Amino acid sequence: MGAHADDSALPPVRFETHPDRYRHWRLELPQEHGGTVARLVLDIRENEGLRPGYPLKLNSYDLGVDIELADALQRIRFEHPAVKAIVFTSGKDRIFCSGANIYMLGSSTHGFKVNFCKFTNETRLYLEEMSAESGISSLAALAGTSSGGGYELAIACDEIVLVDDGSSAVSLPEAPLLGVLPGTGGLTRLVDKRKIRRDLADAFSTVAEGVRGKRAVDWNLIDEAPGKKDFDGAVKRRLDAMAARSKRRPMKPVKLEPLGTERKYVALEIDEAAHTATLTMRAPEGAEPQTPEELAKAGSGAWVIRAWRELDDALLDLRFNHPNVGVVALKTSGDPAKVLAVDAMLAKHKDDGLVREVTLLVKRVLKRLDNTAKSLFALVEPGSCFAGTLLEIALAADRVYMLDDPDGKNELRVSAMNAGPYPMSNGLTRLQSRFLREPERVSRVLEHDGPFDTRAALDAGLVTFAPDDIDWEDEVRIAFEERASLSPDAMTGMEASLRYGGPETMETKIFGRLSAWQNWIFQRPNAVGPRGALTLYGKPERPEFDFKRT
Amino acid sequence: MGAHADDSALPPVRFETHPDRYRHWRLELPQEHGGTVARLVLDIRENEGLRPGYPLKLNSYDLGVDIELADALQRIRFEHPAVKAIVFTSGKDRIFCSGANIYMLGSSTHGFKVNFCKFTNETRLYLEEMSAESGISSLAALAGTSSGGGYELAIACDEIVLVDDGSSAVSLPEAPLLGVLPGTGGLTRLVDKRKIRRDLADAFSTVAEGVRGKRAVDWNLIDEAPGKKDFDGAVKRRLDAMAARSKRRPMKPVKLEPLGTERKYVALEIDEAAHTATLTMRAPEGAEPQTPEELAKAGSGAWVIRAWRELDDALLDLRFNHPNVGVVALKTSGDPAKVLAVDAMLAKHKDDGLVREVTLLVKRVLKRLDNTAKSLFALVEPGSCFAGTLLEIALAADRVYMLDDPDGKNELRVSAMNAGPYPMSNGLTRLQSRFLREPERVSRVLEHDGPFDTRAALDAGLVTFAPDDIDWEDEVRIAFEERASLSPDAMTGMEASLRYGGPETMETKIFGRLSAWQNWIFQRPNAVGPRGALTLYGKPERPEFDFKRT
Repeated sequence: MGAHADDSALPPVRFETHPDRYRHWRLELPQEHGGTVARLVLDIRENEGLRPGYPLKLNSYDLGVDIELADALQRIRFEHPAVKAIVFTSGKDRIFCSGANIYMLGSSTHGFKVNFCKFTNETRLYLEEMSAESGISSLAALAGTSSGGGYELAIACDEIVLVDDGSSAVSLPEAPLLGVLPGTGGLTRLVDKRKIRRDLADAFSTVAEGVRGKRAVDWNLIDEAPGKKDFDGAVKRRLDAMAARSKRRPMKPVKLEPLGTERKYVALEIDEAAHTATLTMRAPEGAEPQTPEELAKAGSGAWVIRAWRELDDALLDLRFNHPNVGVVALKTSGDPAKVLAVDAMLAKHKDDGLVREVTLLVKRVLKRLDNTAKSLFALVEPGSCFAGTLLEIALAADRVYMLDDPDGKNELRVSAMNAGPYPMSNGLTRLQSRFLREPERVSRVLEHDGPFDTRAALDAGLVTFAPDDIDWEDEVRIAFEERASLSPDAMTGMEASLRYGGPETMETKIFGRLSAWQNWIFQRPNAVGPRGALTLYGKPERPEFDFKRT
Repeated sequence: MGAHADDSALPPVRFETHPDRYRHWRLELPQEHGGTVARLVLDIRENEGLRPGYPLKLNSYDLGVDIELADALQRIRFEHPAVKAIVFTSGKDRIFCSGANIYMLGSSTHGFKVNFCKFTNETRLYLEEMSAESGISSLAALAGTSSGGGYELAIACDEIVLVDDGSSAVSLPEAPLLGVLPGTGGLTRLVDKRKIRRDLADAFSTVAEGVRGKRAVDWNLIDEAPGKKDFDGAVKRRLDAMAARSKRRPMKPVKLEPLGTERKYVALEIDEAAHTATLTMRAPEGAEPQTPEELAKAGSGAWVIRAWRELDDALLDLRFNHPNVGVVALKTSGDPAKVLAVDAMLAKHKDDGLVREVTLLVKRVLKRLDNTAKSLFALVEPGSCFAGTLLEIALAADRVYMLDDPDGKNELRVSAMNAGPYPMSNGLTRLQSRFLREPERVSRVLEHDGPFDTRAALDAGLVTFAPDDIDWEDEVRIAFEERASLSPDAMTGMEASLRYGGPETMETKIFGRLSAWQNWIFQRPNAVGPRGALTLYGKPERPEFDFKRT
């Protein structure tokens, strides 16, 4: 199924980058807006795709392009506190972006396609979080055609301006041309974010050439369609308005230094043969900042920034570079008091701009953990520090094993940070998601005085199994062996269902409803078979469909 | 992929049945509860599966079994007004039900599996609707093991009693034994209905042997685990309590006469070569009942019962027997005034028991329409009667084409029945789902005085396209040709996303999140490949998994 049926033949994907090294995006801070607007210019270098074999024509993107975008958004948050709005533009004439590169998709393994879409979806949700939580709005300034993933990026922005030049259109040609879905949020955002009437969304999503001008405005596909000579003015007016109404809090900038090759607070050990991994997060060791000023001074070396950037990187590493790992042991080590001290600082200064950004960083990484398709078993042992923010890691796990330590030295601890700052994609805290049936348990846990020993943790419902020290080793070993022996597909589908009980949001609909259907389609011969539409795209042959409806 | 890779070689599935012809269920009205309890006894005849090739051992079921269950539930509603509670029991020793028959699943086409699960899901949701809307609660009386789909049926009941005999357990062995999901609501109901803690749900769903006795109660998998000698007493006590608290409204019974082979109000024409069908619903012709008493007297011959039972049957016929149809033209014909007269009766007598049941029937059939994986284009032409209840059919369509009739004779009409009685699975009315962005349009439409001509319908947002009589024929023809030419899989995934904008419910999560993941798994070699778990079930070989996680 394509040239790269085995990803393991390819070099691992790395997620660290820097504006100095961007090949496809330019991050500019134009003078005209006095530094309040960041301009992200998409100007893709055709021959510098992440992997060989597919020229990135027509400003089409691959994972490498999206890694740069994710980096740029993170840097705008931390390094550019004056920015109150982002404008997306193109460095190419007459085309904004033609979406994900089809040949890249066609030549990727199923697993890579799915993980690529997931990462792209996460980045676009981060853009929306910047608007909702950080006072940084975004505008898609489409001076040319925007199709597929290009339009999906646009609808992740708050506002869209499309030039009315008689030819530039927005379109979602995935279904009519490729036999797949606009699966990086496209269909969901049409009806759930822009709330486009379902019949108009249906018509739009099946017309390969898209919609332009007044009709695009009437259908709410875009917000404005100025003529060519009015385009720049319309964009500027909207950006000025965005900057003016921004509630971005002042903060000192923090430069995100490279993580380098050695992780300091996160260890990821892989056991390829067993299909397992161990992911250990370490508590701070020395003194950590106690005020926002100290935090700004410590910069990206502060534990609460560095450790979580490392965890983020490790999760992406796990997803993309270790597909054979099915079960991950989640561990922590260090002094819980040090973790709680960081939490106390975060809680005390929660209204500070930088503290808020740091908290949002942690929130996003925890969501990335929730959304990682590996079985997650937390192991709570003496010497661990599942306290406060790090307790969320256990609460994100599919199961929690806690050693019933005869010396009573094994413990869990809560903090104010378990009470709200890190909601899951479904809008609930992990404690709320855990206790859907007995919501009163949430406050009981939060009000608990001091540490939970194993018995108390079990009674409180925080722990799944609590073997004693005689059984611990065998029980844990067998649990991992059993889990790793099960069908990895069934586990992915099962975890996607059990992790997200309760309410759904646009975000969970993207990862649940939309992505699940897309993954199904990505397996269907009508898309990926030898005569499938995705396979034959750009070739002279026409796809041949099995017209049976499912 | 199994013996029946081509369903077209098999006789069509028929959905009409009658208790006299049940082969697998017995519908009993035991004297001891004075007729207030219906007992549904599952006693499956091993060698009378719907299709040859798979003995229905251990009270395992196939579609034929579920068709009988759906019929029984419908008859309890209409023919047995005294019934206030249903108890599910087994006619076999030591086993309640072992779920869907694996060999049936393993030998079915992908499309059949998906449609089978959808139908089973619908039937179980009907059981829950009986409890929520009709005052008929249900109890699963498990005197033996209940696994897979057997336990999924149990959790669709309001309450579950499992005998504590040291061996009877409840279990969901799909993931560990078959590499698929408990996809007829199982995973969703665990966390969303019974609100079982996610880590316990995870553990339960991976332990093939299941959970029994006190632990099953502690985890909320069941409600009570009496010993053998207390079992009957516990069941009776719960049934008496259910009957006592029932708010079922009194009504005259209506016998559901066979529809026979000739549909009176619904016409389904198939164009196999074009992959299209035309589904036409006719308005009443003569006088229809104007009071509940007249309705009871008219019985199942009344338009509002017969026409909707026919539509239900036609939809199932379309799904199961016409897989090659991708696009369905939805039409109506007749006098809109006759439809509105029925609506007036339904609205006026909405508190009457029988009228309420009839309204719920229409609601369920409309949901079945929403949930049918075919592109639905409504065609509004002079002579049609998209009025009130029948307007819902147009609102369920992916697009509405309305002829811009120069004589002004083409019209749509609303009634009180568009304002609430027929919510979609997402809990919204079809008008609310249509106008998510401009909710004020809902009341504007409902308050509209008189018919909407084409221009008014277009302005109101009820219509997608309104070609005039010069363009009508070509535009409609091209729309159908284009739609029918697209990848049927992409259309299924697209419609599943666009039809359900807005909130999600347990019901939409079952059809969206859970079913979409299950469909994906049903395509994966780890389940259905030559060495897949589903394929090899019951054979001496062990499945061989590709352990790459997706």
